[in-house]
Amino acid sequence: MTPQEQLLHYRKSIDNFDAVLIHTLAERFRITKAVGTLKASADLPPSDPKREEEQVERLRRLAEHADLDPDFAEKFLEFVIREVIQHHKQARS
Amino acid sequence: MTPQEQLLHYRKSIDNFDAVLIHTLAERFRITKAVGTLKASADLPPSDPKREEEQVERLRRLAEHADLDPDFAEKFLEFVIREVIQHHKQARS
Repeated sequence: MTPQEQLLHYRKSIDNFDAVLIHTLAERFRITKAVGTLKASADLPPSDPKREEEQVERLRRLAEHADLDPDFAEKFLEFVIREVIQHHKQARS
Repeated sequence: MTPQEQLLHYRKSIDNFDAVLIHTLAERFRITKAVGTLKASADLPPSDPKREEEQVERLRRLAEHADLDPDFAEKFLEFVIREVIQHHKQARS
């Protein structure tokens, strides 16, 4: 395999993983949307700091086992949660 | 199901999807690491604007079909690529 062929081979895998990521994120947002609706209708508190702390700890642990930088995993979760909060704000307005 | 039980049910799904995301990201970074090594050893250019443009277009399209905000998909790709560049810099130093 030439380096150019090897590169194309890697890129096909990256594209496949990106499709997994996008579809998994789409499904995750479908659930957080339902969570937002549930919390509003059942008068549950919109945020839960204990739950968020557990999520961070768990994702850091999963990342470590998968050889992914735990700090990146935490930044990633924050990035996703920021978007969830944005959705909830849009839903309320 | 009480609202509290429904919430726990949703959270289990969110946790499962987060595990998918973390492991997929870990595998994606394994590949981009190999791409970095390949590019360095084969003297290929480190960045490829045309490829990046195609990735953005493709992910926006996938996001639209999955009912995910295409702007979020683009921000997500930028977030991941920033981390890849960080890795490549660390590998070189």
